[in-house]
Amino acid sequence: MSFQKLDDLGRRLEAFSHALSILGVDEAVAMAVGGGEARAEAMSALAGMQHRQASAPEIADWIDAAEQEDLSDDQRAAVRELKRQYTNLTCLPVEFVEKQMRTRMRCEQLWRDLRAKKDWHSFEPALDGVIQLVREEAAMRADALKLAPYDALVEQYDPGTRVSDIAPVFNDLKSFLVDFVPRALGAQDNRLSKRPMKALSGSYPIERQRELGLAMMQAVGFDLTHGSLAVSHHPFCGGVPTDVRITTRYKTSEFLSSLMGVLHETGHALYEQNLPKEWAHWPLGKARGMAVHESQSLFVEKQIGRNPAFWAWALPVVERHLGEDWSIEDILPHVHHVERGLIRVDADEVTYPLHIILRFELEQDLVSGKLQTRDLPEAWDAKMQDYLGLSTIDSPGDGPMQDVHWPSGALGYFPSYSLGAMMAAQQWTSIAAAVPDIEADLSAGEFSRINAWRRDNIWSQGSRWSTPELMQRATGAALDATHFKRHLEARYG
Amino acid sequence: MSFQKLDDLGRRLEAFSHALSILGVDEAVAMAVGGGEARAEAMSALAGMQHRQASAPEIADWIDAAEQEDLSDDQRAAVRELKRQYTNLTCLPVEFVEKQMRTRMRCEQLWRDLRAKKDWHSFEPALDGVIQLVREEAAMRADALKLAPYDALVEQYDPGTRVSDIAPVFNDLKSFLVDFVPRALGAQDNRLSKRPMKALSGSYPIERQRELGLAMMQAVGFDLTHGSLAVSHHPFCGGVPTDVRITTRYKTSEFLSSLMGVLHETGHALYEQNLPKEWAHWPLGKARGMAVHESQSLFVEKQIGRNPAFWAWALPVVERHLGEDWSIEDILPHVHHVERGLIRVDADEVTYPLHIILRFELEQDLVSGKLQTRDLPEAWDAKMQDYLGLSTIDSPGDGPMQDVHWPSGALGYFPSYSLGAMMAAQQWTSIAAAVPDIEADLSAGEFSRINAWRRDNIWSQGSRWSTPELMQRATGAALDATHFKRHLEARYG
Repeated sequence: MSFQKLDDLGRRLEAFSHALSILGVDEAVAMAVGGGEARAEAMSALAGMQHRQASAPEIADWIDAAEQEDLSDDQRAAVRELKRQYTNLTCLPVEFVEKQMRTRMRCEQLWRDLRAKKDWHSFEPALDGVIQLVREEAAMRADALKLAPYDALVEQYDPGTRVSDIAPVFNDLKSFLVDFVPRALGAQDNRLSKRPMKALSGSYPIERQRELGLAMMQAVGFDLTHGSLAVSHHPFCGGVPTDVRITTRYKTSEFLSSLMGVLHETGHALYEQNLPKEWAHWPLGKARGMAVHESQSLFVEKQIGRNPAFWAWALPVVERHLGEDWSIEDILPHVHHVERGLIRVDADEVTYPLHIILRFELEQDLVSGKLQTRDLPEAWDAKMQDYLGLSTIDSPGDGPMQDVHWPSGALGYFPSYSLGAMMAAQQWTSIAAAVPDIEADLSAGEFSRINAWRRDNIWSQGSRWSTPELMQRATGAALDATHFKRHLEARYG
Repeated sequence: MSFQKLDDLGRRLEAFSHALSILGVDEAVAMAVGGGEARAEAMSALAGMQHRQASAPEIADWIDAAEQEDLSDDQRAAVRELKRQYTNLTCLPVEFVEKQMRTRMRCEQLWRDLRAKKDWHSFEPALDGVIQLVREEAAMRADALKLAPYDALVEQYDPGTRVSDIAPVFNDLKSFLVDFVPRALGAQDNRLSKRPMKALSGSYPIERQRELGLAMMQAVGFDLTHGSLAVSHHPFCGGVPTDVRITTRYKTSEFLSSLMGVLHETGHALYEQNLPKEWAHWPLGKARGMAVHESQSLFVEKQIGRNPAFWAWALPVVERHLGEDWSIEDILPHVHHVERGLIRVDADEVTYPLHIILRFELEQDLVSGKLQTRDLPEAWDAKMQDYLGLSTIDSPGDGPMQDVHWPSGALGYFPSYSLGAMMAAQQWTSIAAAVPDIEADLSAGEFSRINAWRRDNIWSQGSRWSTPELMQRATGAALDATHFKRHLEARYG
C-alpha cells in the first residue's frame, strides 16, 4: 500500500529532522567552541541524506498511487500536504541548489564581517550574486507552482499567502501608521511629562530570573515534561514537539527583556507542543508556516504579555521572584515604550510593521529586477525617511545590511513577521468575542480558556489548511488590518 | 578510485555516529522526561539507516578493489581496519540481529524492574533467552572470524585479545589477590588503629565542586575548547573527539566520589580528544577498544589520581575551592580505602579484579553451555565465597542480577575492566622508566611529560594495532600482571 510507504518514509525523514533539530539546539546551548567544524560537517551530511531521501523520484509514484487508495479524510489531507511539499522540494535542479547554498554561505560569512565594518561597497557584489540566484529560483518555482515569481518565494514560508493578500493589508496599515506613530509618541510624551519613567534597574541574579521565567512559562501553558528553558546567545525556540527547547539570555541589571523574550518563545513553544501528535512524522503534523508561528509567539508576547490586565497578575509574580516592589504604573511605561529607530529587531510593536513594509516593497522590486542591488542604500533611505523620518544613507550597516535574511537568500520571509502580528490581533478579537470577560482571565493568571480556543483553532490544525484558510476558519474572516489598528489605538493612542 | 568511495562512505557514517553520540548525551543531560519515546524512535531509525549503509554488499567490492590500489601505509592500515569492522558487522543475518535486539531490550526492561525486587525466578527465563542467542551469535561469529566462540565475542570489545591472553594473567592475579586482599585489609586495620579515619563530611556547594572538577580536568590535560563537563544521573564520557562531553553527579555532603569520577571520565576524554584527527571518519581513527579505553580512564583515576604524590599537589587545589583544611594523612585513607563487598561498581582497585575474574570464568561456561542459566546463583555464590569470602545465595539481586551487561547480551565485555587496570599499571611502569623522577611531576601538578608518552604510544595510534600489539609496542612487552601486583603491593601492602 503506497500510503504505508509514505508513512515509513515519513518516519525516516522525521529521524533526520529530530537529529538536526537537537543538534542545532545543542550547538547553540552546549557545544564546545572547537566543536563547530565537525558539527557543521555532520549536519550538512545528514541534511544532504535527508534531502536525497525526501526528493527521490519514486515518491511521486507513491503519491499518485496513494491518491487512488481508500483513505480517511485525515490521510487524504496528509497526502495532499506531502505532495505540496514534495513539489516545492523537487522543483529546483540539484546543481542549482548546491550553487545557491555555496553563494549564500559565502555571502553570510562576508556579511558577519562587513556589517560590523559598515562596508557596503565590498558587500554589494556578494549580495548581488545571491539576489541574481533568487531571481532564477523565483522564476523556476513560479513555473512549477504556477504562481507569480515573488508569490512562489512567499509560498516557501507561508503557504497559500499571495501578494494580493498581503499588499492591501500592508497598505492599509502603512497609511494608518504614518499618522499613528507621531500620535503614539505624542501621547507617550504627554504621559511621561505627568509621570516620569522610573528605571527598573537593579541587581537580578540569573537563577532568580530563570525561576521567574519558568513560573511564567508554566502559567501560560508550557508543559515542562515536554520542554525546557536554557541559555543561548540569541533566544530561540527549537527542539521537537515532544521536547521543545526555548532559550533566553540574561542581564543581571535588567529583567524585562529576558522575561518578554521568554514569553515570546513560549508562544512558539505552545504551538509546537500542541500540534497533532499522530501526524508528527508527516508535513500535515507540522506548524503551518512562519506567519502563523509568529502569530503564536506575538500572541503570547504582545496580546497577552503586554496587556495591562496581564500585568495585574504578573507583577506580584515578578515581585515574588525578584523581591522588588513596583506599581503597575512603574512597569507599563517600559512594557509599552515606543521609539523610532533604525533597527528592526529593536523596534516596538507600533513602529515594527514599517520596517517590514519597507522590506516587503523593496524585495518585490529586487525580485522583479525593477530595483538593482547597487541602488539599495538610496532606495532604503528614501523609504526610511518617508515612513519613520530617519536617514540611513550614511550608515548602510543600519540600513540594507542590518538583517541576515537577504544575504542568506530568504526573500519572501519578512512579511511573515507583520502578518503574524496582525493575525494575533485578529485572533484576540475572536477569542474576546467567544469568551466573555477575557481580560479578567488575564488578571487572574488564568489562560485555559484562551488556550482552549487556540488549541482548537490553530494548534491542532497543523498544516491542514493554507494560511489564509486557517485564518478564515479560525476567525470567520480573511486577514484584515482593522483588528491590529484597533489594538494599537487602544494601547498607544 | 575505491579508496575514495570508502572515504565518502566514512563521512556519511560518521555523520550518523556524530548525531547518535550527541543525541545520547542530550538524552542523559538535557532531554525533558516526556521526550523519550520520540527520541528512541529517532535514534533507532538513524542507527538502522547507519547499519544498512555500513553493511551494504558493494562495500566488500570497494574494499577488495582498494586493497589493489596504490595506497600509503596509513591508507592501507585504514582499509585493513575497515575490513575487520565490516566482517564483524556483516557476519550475522539481519533477522538474527533484529530478534536479538528485541530479546535483549525485553530482558533489560525486565531486569530494571526485577533487580529492584530481587526476583531471580521471574528473571531467569528472560536471561536464558538472551544467553541462548549469545551462544548462537558466538557460533556464527566464530565461524566467520575463525576464532573460538568466546574469543569471537571478546573480539567485539577488545580486538585481538584471546582467552589465551587473558586466562594466564587473570589466573596469576587471582592467586595473588586471594592472599593479598586479607593482607591489605590487615594493613589498613593496623593503620586505622594508629590514626582513626577522619570524616570528610561537610557542606560543599555544587558550583564550587564543579569549579574544582574543571580545574582538575584542565590541569590533567582536558582541552575545554573541545569538551565540557555536565551533570547526569550516571557519570559517563560521550560526545565526539572534537567535543567530548563528560558528566558527573554531585552530593553536597561529600566531594571525593564526584571528583574521582571526574578524573576517571577525564581519562576517557583525553584518549578521545587526542585520537588522530585526519582519520576521524574511519575506524582507524577511533579508540582501540574497551580495555585500552579503560586503561586510559584508570590511568588518570588510579595511577595518577590515587597516587600520594598527586595529592601533595591536589590537596591545596581542593582546599582552594572548598575552603577546608585537611592534611594528606586525612585524605589518603579515603582515597585508598579497601573493603570486601558484593557490588562490583562500588569495589576498590584491590578487590575489583576478583569481581571481574568471577564473571570471566562464569561467562565462558555460559557460552560453552557447560553452565546453565538456572544454575547461575549457585555458581556465583560458590566463587564469591572462594574469592571474597562473601555469600550471595540469599540475595541474587547482589549476585548474578547486579549488572546490566548479561541482560543486554554483552558477554565478553567484563574482562576489559581488569585488563585495563593491568595495562594502566604496565604503562605507568614504562613511563616511569622513560621519564626520570615522574612522581615529582605529579607533586608539581605537571602532566605534560606523562601525557606526551601517552599521546605518542596510545592516543595517536587510534586503531592501527590490535590490543596486544598496541601494548607490546607501547611497553615493550605483552600484558603481564606483575606491574599491577607491584602497584597494589606498594600502595596497599
